[in-house]
Amino acid sequence: MNETTRIIGIDPGLRRTGWGVIDVLGNSVRFVASGLVTSDAKDDLAARLCQLHDGLDTVVHAYAPHEAAIEQTFVNKDAGATLKLGQARGIALLVPARRGLVIAEYAPNAVKKAVVGAGHAEKIQIRMMVKVLMPKATFDSDDAADALAIALTHAHHRGSATARIARAMAASG
Amino acid sequence: MNETTRIIGIDPGLRRTGWGVIDVLGNSVRFVASGLVTSDAKDDLAARLCQLHDGLDTVVHAYAPHEAAIEQTFVNKDAGATLKLGQARGIALLVPARRGLVIAEYAPNAVKKAVVGAGHAEKIQIRMMVKVLMPKATFDSDDAADALAIALTHAHHRGSATARIARAMAASG
Repeated sequence: MNETTRIIGIDPGLRRTGWGVIDVLGNSVRFVASGLVTSDAKDDLAARLCQLHDGLDTVVHAYAPHEAAIEQTFVNKDAGATLKLGQARGIALLVPARRGLVIAEYAPNAVKKAVVGAGHAEKIQIRMMVKVLMPKATFDSDDAADALAIALTHAHHRGSATARIARAMAASG
Repeated sequence: MNETTRIIGIDPGLRRTGWGVIDVLGNSVRFVASGLVTSDAKDDLAARLCQLHDGLDTVVHAYAPHEAAIEQTFVNKDAGATLKLGQARGIALLVPARRGLVIAEYAPNAVKKAVVGAGHAEKIQIRMMVKVLMPKATFDSDDAADALAIALTHAHHRGSATARIARAMAASG
């Protein structure tokens, strides 16, 4: 019953994809690691997507999380930026899915609400609350902090999600 | 000097990704195969991206093309559709890139101009011209026909592209 669940949170981006790994045991959360996978803006798009894929796959392989969580992309008015983000996000979804992980998606407001308690929080508040919730957490970028916040959001929500999946499996099995 | 170059053209989409493989020898082109990789709209996004990845990777592995060509995505005003297409396009670029293929990108108008001779051609004209250029070509969807048209476009343009790459390699080597 008291098994640790390891969660990876991913904040996708073509130039910088943040990631954060936490362990969850009951109501307690523990920081494991965080970092950034980058692509070289001088390379062509396909090469950059390969860099994101290989970097993220190395992280998922090394830390062997059980579940993944990713931010639902904010669709803005700049179609070119949306397309770029979409391409990076496709890779960020593919990597954990190919390793058999269930992937949860959370809207940016849900992440802010779960971590800070308000849907309109600033980046600095997210960084601070990640440190309050996990004092040992280290991160050297907003993207890594966001990724940890996404993982924390999933830790808060996964009880009900796990129950839903168990019910669905029982119903189909 | 007279080596056959095999080209795969890809027309990316989340629901349907068309592909077409042709052989090029000098100025002649030969149809090899075409088809469709689909994802199940009932599945979640990550699973669908896996389906596209595995389907396309099977095709690339089976036909072992030397070069790939993909349509430059038309960025429309529907941000949600752009994001979806972006995610599928990320996979369509990743698969050949991970297998070491050079990937060329062509704007839709360039494809129409190369195949039909006019930048404003209709789908039906593209299908007809693919048949004229390669009488033995078979395709059972517009997406597969478009993918063959993209491959043909690359066949038309690659002479100069290959020369550019050779120059770049000579300069860096």
